[in-house]
Amino acid sequence: MTRTFAFQDYYPDSLAHCYGCGRLNAHGHQIKSYWDGEESVCHFIPEPYHIAVPGYVYGGLLASLIDCHGTGTASAAAYRAEGRGMDTEPPLRFLTASLHMDYLKPTPLGIELEIRARVKEVKGRRVIVEEWLLANGSVTVRGEVVAVQVPEQMLSDLLEGKS
Amino acid sequence: MTRTFAFQDYYPDSLAHCYGCGRLNAHGHQIKSYWDGEESVCHFIPEPYHIAVPGYVYGGLLASLIDCHGTGTASAAAYRAEGRGMDTEPPLRFLTASLHMDYLKPTPLGIELEIRARVKEVKGRRVIVEEWLLANGSVTVRGEVVAVQVPEQMLSDLLEGKS
Repeated sequence: MTRTFAFQDYYPDSLAHCYGCGRLNAHGHQIKSYWDGEESVCHFIPEPYHIAVPGYVYGGLLASLIDCHGTGTASAAAYRAEGRGMDTEPPLRFLTASLHMDYLKPTPLGIELEIRARVKEVKGRRVIVEEWLLANGSVTVRGEVVAVQVPEQMLSDLLEGKS
Repeated sequence: MTRTFAFQDYYPDSLAHCYGCGRLNAHGHQIKSYWDGEESVCHFIPEPYHIAVPGYVYGGLLASLIDCHGTGTASAAAYRAEGRGMDTEPPLRFLTASLHMDYLKPTPLGIELEIRARVKEVKGRRVIVEEWLLANGSVTVRGEVVAVQVPEQMLSDLLEGKS
């Protein structure tokens, strides 16, 4: 059996500490995102304490999932646009410039959520990612992330642990 | 010495479980918001693991702080508009309809952050709250929350634990 690597599995160690998506953050969510055709997908089961009001998921967690799945998708899309694998150099990492969330209806707690994304627009180093979150097959949240590629000097400082 | 109660201290017990602002969520952030003239203010020190890249705070946490400080401020403003204290009945609680975040620059980790908010607009049961987050006196994030008052039936179900 071949293991399928998630976008986040390719992040360099020095950039893998993010609370939302870093595989090296023991306290964090460690989300995993994958391509599914032209869309990307991520599954996540909130903890019982990720509560807003009884029975429903806390919106701040949903913002975190949309945010990190969005920057991960922007990164994967940038590699894809260059026709190279995520295990090739140099690494392409993205930060969030803006995040918009529309909470369409309450998201039930206690089930696996599905977060899906699609690249809406690429403008130079900016990638706009549109997303939606499904609970029991129903879209409860729509989101949009404007992700910006980390500037080269900042990236090289981060990779060398200079920050 | 008189203790000053935060907005969140007045939330009814059955509505005080939110991961961002519920005083009864042992795992959560338990933020505390207060009036400061026409603005409201909240202070928060992120944990070392609330990291994005080394040295900087994770944007999903900042979204959570803006979200919960925004709904708390909407609630406090609604009581103020009715000329009554937050310890009077019936309780007025708000949910987030939409959240917008602009990350202007990286927010340094390891210091106390200040989140400030101002009511921008009230339209019936919808309150728009504009917010900004300061680190070392510099605005690193701007946010906007559209908060909607919880419908009466839903509120009464929640208060009775029916959800």
